[in-house]
Amino acid sequence: MGEIKRHPERGNSQREVIRAILAEGLVAHVGIIDAQGAPVVIPMAYALDGDSILVHGSVASRLMRSAGPICVTVTLLDGLVVARSLFNSSMNYRSVVVTGTPDVLEGDERERALMVLSAFLLPGRVGHSREPSRPEIRQTTVWRLSLAEATAKIRSGPPKEDPASDYELPYWGGVVPVHTTFGAPEPDGAGVSMPVPEHITTMRRGTSD
Amino acid sequence: MGEIKRHPERGNSQREVIRAILAEGLVAHVGIIDAQGAPVVIPMAYALDGDSILVHGSVASRLMRSAGPICVTVTLLDGLVVARSLFNSSMNYRSVVVTGTPDVLEGDERERALMVLSAFLLPGRVGHSREPSRPEIRQTTVWRLSLAEATAKIRSGPPKEDPASDYELPYWGGVVPVHTTFGAPEPDGAGVSMPVPEHITTMRRGTSD
Repeated sequence: MGEIKRHPERGNSQREVIRAILAEGLVAHVGIIDAQGAPVVIPMAYALDGDSILVHGSVASRLMRSAGPICVTVTLLDGLVVARSLFNSSMNYRSVVVTGTPDVLEGDERERALMVLSAFLLPGRVGHSREPSRPEIRQTTVWRLSLAEATAKIRSGPPKEDPASDYELPYWGGVVPVHTTFGAPEPDGAGVSMPVPEHITTMRRGTSD
Repeated sequence: MGEIKRHPERGNSQREVIRAILAEGLVAHVGIIDAQGAPVVIPMAYALDGDSILVHGSVASRLMRSAGPICVTVTLLDGLVVARSLFNSSMNYRSVVVTGTPDVLEGDERERALMVLSAFLLPGRVGHSREPSRPEIRQTTVWRLSLAEATAKIRSGPPKEDPASDYELPYWGGVVPVHTTFGAPEPDGAGVSMPVPEHITTMRRGTSD
């Protein structure tokens, strides 16, 4: 991780920090090597599950039939860092990079993992929805990747001007925060008419305050 | 792209769609193959530049010293799709996957590309900040990747229940929109005291309405 070596103050391998970042995200970017030997990066829903991360996709996906090492990266964008110099303008973010070769889950492990994924992605939904049938479970590939090889990288706070004389330039410096928020739930208007349930109205996540 | 094959209705290679998605994002996830032959995915700022995408990083970054194929993926998360069945719950999103081997820009091309990156990431900032010095330019590696091998994938709209009988279940179905918004600018309080300039107060991007 060249990036982390260059900014040791941003590298943080503490498991707590890693877990907190993963608990807040919704989408991971998963890198694999395709049949031609080229990297491919695909957005996927994921779940934090103890000391592992779970990702799932269709059994029919060529990507998920590949074996070998993968990389799962989760990034939370927190702000635009507006420096007086273009060179020191940056972004505030928290990211986790997890590398390794995943276990392909089968049987009861796969079924349990799918429930963990549902509970992570849509809290409160298990118990207020139809659980997957056996054919549905068999259509889904689930990978488990240990957090053993996980690193966190964080950039926070105001711009750092360098050289320091840049502070005297007649330009504005600061941070524009970036928030991720949920809007008002939109019923699909189909089927049985129901009020929006509490687990949907109280859903909360992301980088909003 | 196995994912695109399985959902042909979500695949859209039209250049206009690809450019519109790239124009809205701020962070790309860049996949490379490291010295050990494993994939690594790193978040990076990027810019749309005509029929190319630009990414930049430190010359000192081991990642950016690697040659060979890369994959640049940009994802905009638009909503959580809450189906009556866990199996058909999903996410609304727009993503672009660009593959190929990038050109490493040098000289005037690199200098111009850095200005394009600044103008894309912080519109209005060029002209209201110190431009990069020659040593700063030399510290930055810039890659240009053609959009020739770019694909877009989009999921939008309400849940699709399958089997259709799921619509009759006593569960709520719909979409919880996800918005990305900018908060109030936070001056760093250093240097010359200045009002927040208009190019900062009017900054607009992301999936907010």
